[in-house]
Amino acid sequence: MTAHPELIDALRQALPPDQLLTEPGDCWPYGYDNSRQQALPEAVAFATGAEQVQAVVRLCHEHGVPLTARGRGTGTTGATVPVRGGVVLSLERMDRILEIDPDNRLMVVQPGVTNQAVQDAAAAHGFFWPPDPTSAAFCTVGGNLAYNSAGPRAVKYGTPRENTLGLRAVSGDGRLLRTGVYTTKGVVGYDLTRLIIGSEGTLAVITEATLKLTPLPAAKRTLQAVYRDMGDAARAVAAIMAQPTIPCALEFMDRGAIEMIRRYSEANLPEGAGALLMIEVDGPEDCVDSAADTVTRAARVDGALSVEVARSEAEVKALWATRKALSPALRNVAPKKINEDVVVPVSHIPTLIEGLEALSQRFGITIVNFGHAGNGNIHVNLLVDPDDPVQMQAADACLDEVFSLVLKLRGSLSGEHGIGLVKRAFVDREIEPETLDLMRRIKGQFDPKGILNPGKGFPDI
Amino acid sequence: MTAHPELIDALRQALPPDQLLTEPGDCWPYGYDNSRQQALPEAVAFATGAEQVQAVVRLCHEHGVPLTARGRGTGTTGATVPVRGGVVLSLERMDRILEIDPDNRLMVVQPGVTNQAVQDAAAAHGFFWPPDPTSAAFCTVGGNLAYNSAGPRAVKYGTPRENTLGLRAVSGDGRLLRTGVYTTKGVVGYDLTRLIIGSEGTLAVITEATLKLTPLPAAKRTLQAVYRDMGDAARAVAAIMAQPTIPCALEFMDRGAIEMIRRYSEANLPEGAGALLMIEVDGPEDCVDSAADTVTRAARVDGALSVEVARSEAEVKALWATRKALSPALRNVAPKKINEDVVVPVSHIPTLIEGLEALSQRFGITIVNFGHAGNGNIHVNLLVDPDDPVQMQAADACLDEVFSLVLKLRGSLSGEHGIGLVKRAFVDREIEPETLDLMRRIKGQFDPKGILNPGKGFPDI
Repeated sequence: MTAHPELIDALRQALPPDQLLTEPGDCWPYGYDNSRQQALPEAVAFATGAEQVQAVVRLCHEHGVPLTARGRGTGTTGATVPVRGGVVLSLERMDRILEIDPDNRLMVVQPGVTNQAVQDAAAAHGFFWPPDPTSAAFCTVGGNLAYNSAGPRAVKYGTPRENTLGLRAVSGDGRLLRTGVYTTKGVVGYDLTRLIIGSEGTLAVITEATLKLTPLPAAKRTLQAVYRDMGDAARAVAAIMAQPTIPCALEFMDRGAIEMIRRYSEANLPEGAGALLMIEVDGPEDCVDSAADTVTRAARVDGALSVEVARSEAEVKALWATRKALSPALRNVAPKKINEDVVVPVSHIPTLIEGLEALSQRFGITIVNFGHAGNGNIHVNLLVDPDDPVQMQAADACLDEVFSLVLKLRGSLSGEHGIGLVKRAFVDREIEPETLDLMRRIKGQFDPKGILNPGKGFPDI
Repeated sequence: MTAHPELIDALRQALPPDQLLTEPGDCWPYGYDNSRQQALPEAVAFATGAEQVQAVVRLCHEHGVPLTARGRGTGTTGATVPVRGGVVLSLERMDRILEIDPDNRLMVVQPGVTNQAVQDAAAAHGFFWPPDPTSAAFCTVGGNLAYNSAGPRAVKYGTPRENTLGLRAVSGDGRLLRTGVYTTKGVVGYDLTRLIIGSEGTLAVITEATLKLTPLPAAKRTLQAVYRDMGDAARAVAAIMAQPTIPCALEFMDRGAIEMIRRYSEANLPEGAGALLMIEVDGPEDCVDSAADTVTRAARVDGALSVEVARSEAEVKALWATRKALSPALRNVAPKKINEDVVVPVSHIPTLIEGLEALSQRFGITIVNFGHAGNGNIHVNLLVDPDDPVQMQAADACLDEVFSLVLKLRGSLSGEHGIGLVKRAFVDREIEPETLDLMRRIKGQFDPKGILNPGKGFPDI
């Protein structure tokens, strides 16, 4: 027996039978994401076009029932978990690329298309779309926009906010919105495009996005730099970021991450390595070697044990294999690790890492750090057993201190994973009360009944 | 006798005597901008800090009196003209650079600092701030942010929205807001930074901005390409923008603009030139020549009469002199020309220019076009005599058709000048009613009494 039989009946009228699930057994798979959270929706609706999105949102609005939009559920913060029940609106069947316009460097897509499909279609015309989360093969562009998800390339090419020209979306009261432009400039009206991007489905459901494409660079070089300790590596990051050749990836891992790889993978790393940088530069074929030289010089700070350019495609693969061995290795040790994605200004990375080491000792928790050093975006992994209540309590206390340290260093609680369920209690430490109150009131204009993804992104009042 | 004596008394209490003007003769100079509009404010307040901004906004809010924030008045749309009277809040005395942090590529400034002062301070550390309006020597960063003003470099480096990390601002009800981050990533809360940027002082008064800096490129090459006609030049623009070497300037002028320069300046231009491109590429010293070669190849489409790289600093100066001769030449012919700054997708520039030629003939109005071709941002100049009512009527009808054409080509009414007073009647042709209504309701959350810059940006209801 459902809590809202009239809504369910109305949804049945609005959608073909194969676009609505109401059996709990069928609905459960749409009630989780890549966090440890799960909740059962009353129904799962599958839209195939903007009109259906509008119809479903309108019905939920009329009945005052929560609606959670969902791509492929690869998010890590519980943002698509329907904690207050109601309807999950899956956009995975709205997966068409509507238009590719290489002359104007843009692509118009539905939200359910995967990031990989966008990259493939763009590459056929010599372009790419910069956001590249690790989950690119599976995650949807709608999800990338909802979280403002980036990845390694953001250091040079920016996040979805810098790479999206316009949106169509349905607000919480069922209005069709059209935001932005088809051009790289435009100042008519307020910038609702960026307001909706990163709002985790709490303002509107995106039904179409106009993506800004970037030409594929002709060539790339991949470097591995090994350091005595993290302080040295962090100084190298600052030196690299202070000169004009901006790398298209500047990834790092700390001693713990390197040890992890050593133990659980075949990757070959020099003895005594306390920190490692993976650096990529791209550009025209005749410039990329000198770009690699420039970055190499910047990377050779005191404490650098080696800075090497990969000489072959096989060596590049080996280098990325090292980086990619990390997540599986971590999962081996701690299947339910806590993975935060804090950001600090680049020059504060050493202080952050030192602070994390001290917290690790104080709370007796192994902390492994890696991430997008060029953006100061550090993935802090607390290797804890979530079934051990004592350890979990220590982890909570430790996380609390991690966030305090990050904010003291002028950082932010999240660089690309978002808030969702898991960080909402901490949001009011970063955002001041009057600004937070204004955000809530803006939400009220998009979604007067508060049906869109309730319980996410904001702390409870 | 002022309309709001109690407010004026309260302002006198709140501000030192040299920070308040109330005599009409003193106030008039703060009632105009670089449009043809002018209006008399009741008072002009000069703030020297955020607390004073807050105090003035609070008083205007309490008394329900309009407040128009103002930098140096270089805007072209009347956005800072106090058409509904009230208080002009001048921010020109808040002109300090509060912090330069080269390690983290950021600068914290007050809103009244000039764009040039920011560039000079950044250059001392090897950096620049990409937005570069023609008025850079005089205009303030607060104004750049209010209009999202860009300039030639936007084609490669983006507009203020892509180059600002965070803001402090006072909302229309006098609340101190803090938006954004000190890092290049951040997804906590809604993106109010970009919402306030480009809002023309209708949402909040910016009191501090954290600017994202970019390292100065080591070298630059400047090219001049001359074409038979605009169609050829536009095809060259598309060809240049479709390959990976993005110029840091891609400016064009049409036949009318070239004729104008020929007649009114010393600049040397080949016979039979129907269109001209000025192109700049930048990068490391050892790459910039090959970048210039790549762009030259792309620019050599059918109809190219010459594509030449400047060989010396003197030649570069001569090329930019050509471009810069344009505005004075135009002002010579038509001191009160109508200057629009429409945007269309790059591949539609030829169709736009053809359409403008047809409109020019039909309405008997000389139209001269130049602008930032790489962004499709065309400055359309109608050379009319504003004192001739018949010609002005024709100009109105012509402009109406210009905007229709731009929107038909998927363009936008403004790329960098904004709406202000002069384009507000056209905004609802570009933005759909429900989206416009939502923007108005968002404005209501920032500014519940509608005191901030009333009568700007939106059409009357």
